[in-house]
Amino acid sequence: MTLAVRYTSARTLDTAPANTAAPGPGEVELAPSYVGICGTDLHIFHGDMDARVSAPAVLGHEMAGRIVRVGPDVEGWQPGAAVTVMPLRWDSTCPACRAGHQHICQHLDFIGIDSPGAMQQRWTVPASTLVRLPDSLPLERGALVEPTAVAVHDVGRAGVRDGEKVVVVGGGPVGVLIALVARAAGADVRVVELSAHRRLLAEELGLTAWDPAAADVPGLVRQWTGDAGADVAFEVSGAAGGVDTAVEVLGVRGRLCLVAIHPRPREINLHRFFWRELTLVGARLYDRSDFERAVALVADGTIPAERLISRVVPLSEAPAAFEALESGGDVMKILVDCATDPTGAAV
Amino acid sequence: MTLAVRYTSARTLDTAPANTAAPGPGEVELAPSYVGICGTDLHIFHGDMDARVSAPAVLGHEMAGRIVRVGPDVEGWQPGAAVTVMPLRWDSTCPACRAGHQHICQHLDFIGIDSPGAMQQRWTVPASTLVRLPDSLPLERGALVEPTAVAVHDVGRAGVRDGEKVVVVGGGPVGVLIALVARAAGADVRVVELSAHRRLLAEELGLTAWDPAAADVPGLVRQWTGDAGADVAFEVSGAAGGVDTAVEVLGVRGRLCLVAIHPRPREINLHRFFWRELTLVGARLYDRSDFERAVALVADGTIPAERLISRVVPLSEAPAAFEALESGGDVMKILVDCATDPTGAAV
Repeated sequence: MTLAVRYTSARTLDTAPANTAAPGPGEVELAPSYVGICGTDLHIFHGDMDARVSAPAVLGHEMAGRIVRVGPDVEGWQPGAAVTVMPLRWDSTCPACRAGHQHICQHLDFIGIDSPGAMQQRWTVPASTLVRLPDSLPLERGALVEPTAVAVHDVGRAGVRDGEKVVVVGGGPVGVLIALVARAAGADVRVVELSAHRRLLAEELGLTAWDPAAADVPGLVRQWTGDAGADVAFEVSGAAGGVDTAVEVLGVRGRLCLVAIHPRPREINLHRFFWRELTLVGARLYDRSDFERAVALVADGTIPAERLISRVVPLSEAPAAFEALESGGDVMKILVDCATDPTGAAV
Repeated sequence: MTLAVRYTSARTLDTAPANTAAPGPGEVELAPSYVGICGTDLHIFHGDMDARVSAPAVLGHEMAGRIVRVGPDVEGWQPGAAVTVMPLRWDSTCPACRAGHQHICQHLDFIGIDSPGAMQQRWTVPASTLVRLPDSLPLERGALVEPTAVAVHDVGRAGVRDGEKVVVVGGGPVGVLIALVARAAGADVRVVELSAHRRLLAEELGLTAWDPAAADVPGLVRQWTGDAGADVAFEVSGAAGGVDTAVEVLGVRGRLCLVAIHPRPREINLHRFFWRELTLVGARLYDRSDFERAVALVADGTIPAERLISRVVPLSEAPAAFEALESGGDVMKILVDCATDPTGAAV
């Protein structure tokens, strides 16, 4: 028997036996080892995405694991291979796909939201979604490849260049990953984060972090940049105040990359966009090149993925981990260990 | 005696004798022939810019005229030359200037707002602001070069390419000029405009214009683009509904160029920016290359400037013209004729 973590209704998860049908043509069956809990999973848990998610729904899309079975018509993959998954299925026919932007397909199936996710002991996915992980990479770290690919995509959308001054508003897992990827691109980075725990982690990773509750962030940016303002800001907080800060810190021709999801319209200082000729860039998900770059950054230690992992919990404790994350607290990334069954035996 | 149109206090203009000191080093004295009334002039007239404008203030920055006197240390210019003016003075030392963006200098002097403007019979400006007009170009048309340079800059900021589908929200003078410049760049253009008069003019210029009060504009765009959405939208209306329309009509990776001034924050559908990876681009003023391109477009008839001129009024009637524009009505561009004195004699 294999188990899955399922969202059943607002604020309720259970663990239940899962389907283990043989993989069909073009599919592979995976044994997820570690699955990260993402902000989007929390949104689903809160019940905010019930219009999109069909309960009971298996959550999870940040994973690393190994291939167990390979279906017909799959080439190049063997059981035992270490992989992560780019959890996207597109229709190839809509205008977005035809324009080459498959990751924002107008009928995108995001696996783990629109179809069953990774938080289970066996997971069947299209072979086309597989991304190979180096054998030498511990799978805990491999579970951080997906959020790292988000960060790679965001830094690319913002066009961060060597020597630029970058402000990241929001120092959660994605914010810190963006900061690290931007630094790897040669940028000088500041992180703005309310949580002392998260600021401390950022500082331990060699980043400078500011507390917006205690400091005048725009004033600090003016001082830091000789009154020029920042070249790039990333809005990763999801808060109205975060948007305002990100707009205010930018210098002329500055670029604001919008990473956090703002479900409702926000007031924006459009006059500043006019006055300084700012650019706002929306960023969503990633493409395969982002994933490949993310694998390389995690594998070579540029992204010290293990430092972002606050806790690893067994699959049976995933529901409690969601509740812990919801109540905030001093955590970054929590991984669900799917490879160890509730009795402690490997499956 | 020479006369000037002056803003004295909210909703009050007068005409008064003006300073005719000899031009200083690096300066030239011009005889403005025609000066257009711009939306910014109306904002000043309304009293909305009293914090910035020192009354009494001579308005006007859309002009064409001839050089009368040349000050010391000015090379390459002779009395009689037909010119327009790029009405910007920058400090060359601020971070914006050092980054090569002099037109958004952090201490920009916009001549006609921050210092005396063109709506007078003699106007002294730095020779560095002069832009030569072809002798064959009627000066009425030359007065449209400045707003055309705005349009050239906006179309450049949006990166409009051959074959793209472009929606211009707002069909006043700048909106129509953007539509014409975008069309000259090879774009397929639709104009969204409430005023029947302005829609008719746009149609007469070969543009397709839609009435947002009568038509479902996003639906029309879906139909027009095969459900792909537009590549580029220009927000030239200044209205909250205009911003919403401009966001809604864009397809994946669409670019919204923000042209109108929104003095107060506006609610923006940021979720759409995320979902479709949209870009918002602020655009302000122009640089010299925009002006030179604008001269060429007006001179070769790509911009049929004369068609945008609703009326030419003598300088003494400028105050009444401002009142007429304020009350709306069926007008596009009104020019003030500064070369004919109130008694009807040329000065």
